Amino acid sequence: MMDYPLLLRTFLLRAAKYFPKKELVSIYPQEIFRYTYADYFKRTCQLANALASLGIQRGDRVASIALNSQRHMELYFGVPCMGATLHTVNFRLPMHHLVYVLNHAEDKVLFIEEDLLFFVELVKDQLKTVKHFVILSQSGQMPQTTLSPVYLYDEWISRFPDTYDFPENLSEWDPALLCYTSATTGEPKGVVYSHRGLILHSYAAGVTLRGSEEDCMLHVVPMFHANAWGIPFLGVGLGCKQIFPGREVLNMERLCRIIADEKVTFTCGVPTIWLMLYQYLEGGGFHDFSSLKSIASGGSACPRFLMEGLNEKYGFPIIQAYGMTETTPLALAAIPKSYMLDLPKEQIYDIKTSIGLLAPGLEMKIVNESGAEIAMDGKEWGEILLRGPWIAKEYDRDPERSRPVFADGWLHTGDVGTIDAEGYVRLVDRTKDLVKSGGEWISSVDLENLIMAHPKVLEAAVIGIPHPKWQERPLGCIVLKPGETATKEDLQAFLRDKVKADWWIPDHFVFLDQIPKTSVGKFSKKDLREMVAAGKIIIPDN
Amino acid sequence: MMDYPLLLRTFLLRAAKYFPKKELVSIYPQEIFRYTYADYFKRTCQLANALASLGIQRGDRVASIALNSQRHMELYFGVPCMGATLHTVNFRLPMHHLVYVLNHAEDKVLFIEEDLLFFVELVKDQLKTVKHFVILSQSGQMPQTTLSPVYLYDEWISRFPDTYDFPENLSEWDPALLCYTSATTGEPKGVVYSHRGLILHSYAAGVTLRGSEEDCMLHVVPMFHANAWGIPFLGVGLGCKQIFPGREVLNMERLCRIIADEKVTFTCGVPTIWLMLYQYLEGGGFHDFSSLKSIASGGSACPRFLMEGLNEKYGFPIIQAYGMTETTPLALAAIPKSYMLDLPKEQIYDIKTSIGLLAPGLEMKIVNESGAEIAMDGKEWGEILLRGPWIAKEYDRDPERSRPVFADGWLHTGDVGTIDAEGYVRLVDRTKDLVKSGGEWISSVDLENLIMAHPKVLEAAVIGIPHPKWQERPLGCIVLKPGETATKEDLQAFLRDKVKADWWIPDHFVFLDQIPKTSVGKFSKKDLREMVAAGKIIIPDN
Repeated sequence: MMDYPLLLRTFLLRAAKYFPKKELVSIYPQEIFRYTYADYFKRTCQLANALASLGIQRGDRVASIALNSQRHMELYFGVPCMGATLHTVNFRLPMHHLVYVLNHAEDKVLFIEEDLLFFVELVKDQLKTVKHFVILSQSGQMPQTTLSPVYLYDEWISRFPDTYDFPENLSEWDPALLCYTSATTGEPKGVVYSHRGLILHSYAAGVTLRGSEEDCMLHVVPMFHANAWGIPFLGVGLGCKQIFPGREVLNMERLCRIIADEKVTFTCGVPTIWLMLYQYLEGGGFHDFSSLKSIASGGSACPRFLMEGLNEKYGFPIIQAYGMTETTPLALAAIPKSYMLDLPKEQIYDIKTSIGLLAPGLEMKIVNESGAEIAMDGKEWGEILLRGPWIAKEYDRDPERSRPVFADGWLHTGDVGTIDAEGYVRLVDRTKDLVKSGGEWISSVDLENLIMAHPKVLEAAVIGIPHPKWQERPLGCIVLKPGETATKEDLQAFLRDKVKADWWIPDHFVFLDQIPKTSVGKFSKKDLREMVAAGKIIIPDN
Repeated sequence: MMDYPLLLRTFLLRAAKYFPKKELVSIYPQEIFRYTYADYFKRTCQLANALASLGIQRGDRVASIALNSQRHMELYFGVPCMGATLHTVNFRLPMHHLVYVLNHAEDKVLFIEEDLLFFVELVKDQLKTVKHFVILSQSGQMPQTTLSPVYLYDEWISRFPDTYDFPENLSEWDPALLCYTSATTGEPKGVVYSHRGLILHSYAAGVTLRGSEEDCMLHVVPMFHANAWGIPFLGVGLGCKQIFPGREVLNMERLCRIIADEKVTFTCGVPTIWLMLYQYLEGGGFHDFSSLKSIASGGSACPRFLMEGLNEKYGFPIIQAYGMTETTPLALAAIPKSYMLDLPKEQIYDIKTSIGLLAPGLEMKIVNESGAEIAMDGKEWGEILLRGPWIAKEYDRDPERSRPVFADGWLHTGDVGTIDAEGYVRLVDRTKDLVKSGGEWISSVDLENLIMAHPKVLEAAVIGIPHPKWQERPLGCIVLKPGETATKEDLQAFLRDKVKADWWIPDHFVFLDQIPKTSVGKFSKKDLREMVAAGKIIIPDN
């Protein structure tokens, strides 16, 4: 077979040539902007010429701080297809991390959505490598800015020819995109996506999620979040209509109007958005989901009530998917097998609330502490290890932190799960949050879910604390509902017949005003552990 | 991203581990045999161990002369996953070609379906490299044979362990399968399929034909014919139920029973079979096609009446696909775009009878004689050139004949076509069958179709003959219907207002008893040209 490299160029050229009339649509507060793949291709060529005029070459990096819009989509192909790497920056990072990632990546050009300009103004003096700033603006007006040299994207690229000979002699191993993932400790870690990885991920996502040219894709997940889950690449590969909702992604009524008016068939996003949607729908909001075929949900577990509620009451068909920045991201998807479709609804949702089956093209093993694969019995626990052509092999320029995560040619996800006889995986905990008591593991997540079912408890986080005899014991960190009181004994009694074994029941509980949270709203167990270590949380001596 | 090779092993292991209950089914005259992927995997392991016991190593070649059956399917994965190459032999080749391909490939082991044993008995003394013979038999009895050493497949592999550590350190560029394609002149030409090519083809076929785990695939196309069009690999990749109909493929009633009973969703084959099916259905034969989602038709053009008849009258939804041995084979598929679905039925069939749109991942250009791309106007003609990761780069061990076909990194298909503004391609002729008259091209196929519409004409073939002034002129070779008479002037008058230009009309016609045919039943224009050159066909002197 030909030594023909897997490049994004091939997808781009095919869409431009054979799907020139299909549309790309951006939603703005005051307007809906639409153009065709033919127009898109010309702008992408102009962008490539413009970048070349700045001296940007193969291997150089440029960054985007941008919303989901047609211009961001032009960067998605224009940058990698001309040989450079697009670093999509999470603008929700703390400022010092924002500075860190731009400097660590050594980005030479920074594309900034007009609305997000103030972030960059605040930190511009700390940027060591950025030589040029480009403002993405739908208004067509250069905003007030102290950045320099600065260009207005539309005006800037319009000066360049709308044809470009995208190089066919890149290597498929060349970097195409770059994303940083926030780390529990330390600075964010960079994951580089190759052309090869993105093409293969597109195919695998296509067959897993059953995509086709008929799909109209609405990009709810941010484009800085693991390549918008790779869907924009799949969309161009198949010649799909694609919709970029910008800031309007949080406007549930607008989102529902878009789905109905544009006949959206596919979207993906995090459960937080689906919860907002559910609340909007429960309030009687307009919706017409008749065009929808599937919705991928990921990032964190979609609660069963939410999945069932959206699907059964509103015909919003959620598929739970699993992945992470290191996996491009699709690794598993919870789609029942064809012979399961007649199962009782209860069992169907058991399957649909798992994290699913391995995508075709990857390898997975779930291993216990001695590295042996666990039984496929839905009971044994182990850490999920993945390998395959769209799994990262390292963190960018960070051998130290790469070593343990990518040991032995496998990605050690840090997620602990079970796998049943049919191959469906369920998450139990994060490895670092498991509590090891007397040589046996306790799932902090399981315990938290049990405790939070107590009517007086608002929030509960469980961490392991050192114990002279048992090595570790679980500590329950509890926030009670306003005005409620409860004792250790109340909670222990409540757990008695619910836990897997009595020794799971925490010996100690602390009652707090609040549980510290991470920047994305999850319990910060790292902070809890530090507070215990520093004596800021006092464990009762009984 | 990880340097994880694209190997068939990954698909095999996933199916065995996560789809162990899904079935593989073989149809025999007296029985239906079924087993699961779990069983299949064990037998594949036994086969790999058995091959290793013969000293078969990475890079060695073994051949199959076999029907579509579960044993052939075991070879499909067992051979390449242990590192060897499976050469699937077309047993319909003339005997001297059968000998040629086995010797040219240097096959060391030959697997032979019991029913086809006599072919091998006839030529066994001419085989230079085959060291071992293995009989594939459903009866479980060793047939009478003079071959030696010879093993009965089931009994032989049963002696070996049912686990095998399929090597993960093969290169994705390693050969996996090998197929010979018959050439117009000379011996058949070998095409080697790499693991990489087969994996990528599987993904692309999956997204193009919209495959999923729910599919039940019926393999109508022979497994020696370009990897059964790659569908068995896609099927394992997705965990699909697959059905192998053996000799029963030509039994239309049985085929229709299988489709109904097994709830077949997908199949593919050549128009000859669909014509047999249509005749069976028109005769009132049993059918229940409610489970069918799509049928890929390829190999030659599916006549419009056949496609329309099967689809409109019987709900047998044919998709025309285009490819060849050199393209693994899927290259284009004629699926209307989503915005075309409301077109009048007439126009939909115009699209569906084209050879379609380019599959995602390939590049195509259609070029005129000076190598420039033709206009996408549905009118200009050019030769179809293809390149991509599942397009062959050469004929095996045949640099001489490879050179012109694979010049400049493109496959020169030898097919001439038009392409319209939407990207749909229509075939006009083979390059070598075009007639060049006064510097302009005439399509022999177009002329033949026009002439065959004459009520007195049974068959018509058009070839170019040398002409002192016009370089070439078309010659009409005509077979009249029994008892009919017609003159040159009748045919010329008939063509007058139908041809694109008057100079298309042949100056000469010859009336023959029959048109020579190739081994697959097509007009042999090569033979016609030779007969003219040798004076066996006399061109009237007027």
